[in-house]
Amino acid sequence: MVQSAIQEIKAAFTGLKCKECGETYEPAAIHVCEYCFGPLEVSYDFSRLAGKITRQDIQAGPHSIWRYRSFLPVETDQPIDVGTGMTPLLKANRLARQLGLKHLYIKNDAVNMPTLSFKDRVVSVALTRAQELGFTTVSCASTGNLANSTAAIAARAGLDCCVFIPADLEAGKVLGTLIYAPTLMAVEGNYDQVNRLCSEVANTHGWGFVNINLRPYYSEGSKTLGYEVAEQLGWDLPDHIVAPLASGSLFTKIYKGFREFVQVGLVEDRAVRFSGAQAEGCSPIAQAYREGRDFISPVKPNTVAKSIAIGNPADGVYALDIARKTGGTIESVSDEEIVAGMKLLAETEGIFTETAGGTTVAVLKKLVETGQINPEEKTVVYITGNGLKTQEAVQPYVGEPLTIEAKLESFERAWDRAQTLDRLEWQPVMV
Amino acid sequence: MVQSAIQEIKAAFTGLKCKECGETYEPAAIHVCEYCFGPLEVSYDFSRLAGKITRQDIQAGPHSIWRYRSFLPVETDQPIDVGTGMTPLLKANRLARQLGLKHLYIKNDAVNMPTLSFKDRVVSVALTRAQELGFTTVSCASTGNLANSTAAIAARAGLDCCVFIPADLEAGKVLGTLIYAPTLMAVEGNYDQVNRLCSEVANTHGWGFVNINLRPYYSEGSKTLGYEVAEQLGWDLPDHIVAPLASGSLFTKIYKGFREFVQVGLVEDRAVRFSGAQAEGCSPIAQAYREGRDFISPVKPNTVAKSIAIGNPADGVYALDIARKTGGTIESVSDEEIVAGMKLLAETEGIFTETAGGTTVAVLKKLVETGQINPEEKTVVYITGNGLKTQEAVQPYVGEPLTIEAKLESFERAWDRAQTLDRLEWQPVMV
Repeated sequence: MVQSAIQEIKAAFTGLKCKECGETYEPAAIHVCEYCFGPLEVSYDFSRLAGKITRQDIQAGPHSIWRYRSFLPVETDQPIDVGTGMTPLLKANRLARQLGLKHLYIKNDAVNMPTLSFKDRVVSVALTRAQELGFTTVSCASTGNLANSTAAIAARAGLDCCVFIPADLEAGKVLGTLIYAPTLMAVEGNYDQVNRLCSEVANTHGWGFVNINLRPYYSEGSKTLGYEVAEQLGWDLPDHIVAPLASGSLFTKIYKGFREFVQVGLVEDRAVRFSGAQAEGCSPIAQAYREGRDFISPVKPNTVAKSIAIGNPADGVYALDIARKTGGTIESVSDEEIVAGMKLLAETEGIFTETAGGTTVAVLKKLVETGQINPEEKTVVYITGNGLKTQEAVQPYVGEPLTIEAKLESFERAWDRAQTLDRLEWQPVMV
Repeated sequence: MVQSAIQEIKAAFTGLKCKECGETYEPAAIHVCEYCFGPLEVSYDFSRLAGKITRQDIQAGPHSIWRYRSFLPVETDQPIDVGTGMTPLLKANRLARQLGLKHLYIKNDAVNMPTLSFKDRVVSVALTRAQELGFTTVSCASTGNLANSTAAIAARAGLDCCVFIPADLEAGKVLGTLIYAPTLMAVEGNYDQVNRLCSEVANTHGWGFVNINLRPYYSEGSKTLGYEVAEQLGWDLPDHIVAPLASGSLFTKIYKGFREFVQVGLVEDRAVRFSGAQAEGCSPIAQAYREGRDFISPVKPNTVAKSIAIGNPADGVYALDIARKTGGTIESVSDEEIVAGMKLLAETEGIFTETAGGTTVAVLKKLVETGQINPEEKTVVYITGNGLKTQEAVQPYVGEPLTIEAKLESFERAWDRAQTLDRLEWQPVMV
């Protein structure tokens, strides 16, 4: 391992503070302000880093989120590092051409490590912090990707693990959790009900719930999706980003990541427009945006995009605020558009994303078509999970192989036939 | 992108030569010697690199297989680079402890990019070379992973693609190909029959078959699994490697990668033992090894490990030779052991591998138990694909979630029950 200069610099992490009233707290496993019931977030002293941490320091670090350790809420210099982060930022020329954009990039967390979603970032931070705080059992409420990631990284770290999911999740996400042998609780209800149950369990069992009592630390892991894009653009910010909205946390943390890099002098300031993507079947933030509200009315989710189906989003109002103040927007798309988005991304860029990624691509398309993205803008679209986990969503829409005998004549007949078959837009008809 | 010093150095690639009689050829899309019918392989002039290419040159290159471009059979300095390669080499302390080893490492291509198997390496090289040779349609005969990778990277590169698979492949591998909208031919027969058909098609259509007429270039991509391990061990070779055997090509190319790094002075020479892993249901190379034969008797595959089910392995004799001359071995394991191997790896290291990886872990376990690996040896086990693609293989053996109501009492009852349930070795019983 490369010995990094960054490790000589004290981390900026100082404690917790209330996002609403500013009350400060010691960095324990707490997440709600005792005074105003606002959410707690991590506080930093970035003067410790400003002018002291260089691009070269970061580049000399590991090829993972831990190259940004000074910006993350952990104390150890031995974090749980399984290669999470530093996923490719790909110039997407074929998708850009199809949509009519000039400078499109894909941040591809469909191949994040170890469990193929952006959740590996937040879990790596949360479980590193859980170990520092002395937890031996970790837990979470999850729509699937978080369950996969928590179970996998807990297994690697030797932590006991109990995971809660809605009972109707995709098969790949259930198996992709069970394989690591956690205790897996399938709750009859939607994610919001699972989450409420977990808040109660967090009070009765002394566990580290990554997205409840460890949430202040956990959510900071998503900032690395901002840092990495800035670094991979050559230490520059984009003009416009499009990201999915579930709880809204990811969106707000990408924003925070960009702002922190500006604050410590690693990138120059630049206006970045933030646009959010939701599925029509669960679009409480998009609805509030459309109706000009500054509060979220919870909804009951009903969409193929289960991983982002949060009807009562914890950080919804903060996401709303960022979209508005940056000149972005929040849009929603139908399940049909989501599937078409998955196929479009695969056929143009060779990336198989899950339904959340299909939502983001479909919203990107809609924003271009409605003139809400300028073709000249340097636009980054965040793909947050892998399509192998939500196979049932797209299975009916990809056609079937042509079945042939192991003979040249059989192949030639099928090949001739394949040439005459219609190809629907984004869909080969092979039946 | 970092401008690399390596790009100033002429590549070592010179042409093709017959592996058997040594006859030389221009670097065209050919793979069989006209004189002796031996396989063609790429020839190099490593004197162009020896003493001229440094570890720093390589480290200054991209974080992908293309940092080793000087060692690969392409001419362009703009290869197809979607972040393939440089997958983590993880110190596997928990698995090592379980098995009784001291220095175990996992080379984790279950998270290779873009399609989660080592095949992304060979396809990146093959399609880069295919473009140099002027092909506009690419093809392959595949047991699944190669189909995924060829279809995905062809989509990204804007190449037409026609892929051939056995008709009985796992659902995830079929969908994981169709999503990229290639022409997909499902052949009624096993891989060896698919491969024979493709040899005929290669003669009648002017396509670039990555593992037939482009095979000399394609197979060289696997050398990067040798280079990367050497680099990630701190420019050193391991004592022992364990890798799966299908055609035998991967195994021989890891060997070649190590030897080339010794030859150009990037690592010191050291004896490395090479051990190969097969599934009992398709173990022609293991059988030849056991029986002391220097030829392979083809078999008809019948195993859950479909991705390595090649009954007539093209490079079987070369793999056999390497295992023997390095003091390694070739072992096979049952389908039950393969599934147990998948679970063991997930539960100890948080890595969900497909059946091929289960085979490799199960063979590793067997080699330790039979004293064929010394606990002191620095051992690297190659995990070559992702478990989300072969879900049906392990689904019946991971148990089920505990289904509960969204109420604290319901959870507490289930939790108490979970504490009293037996856990079989490697298997939680949650029913």
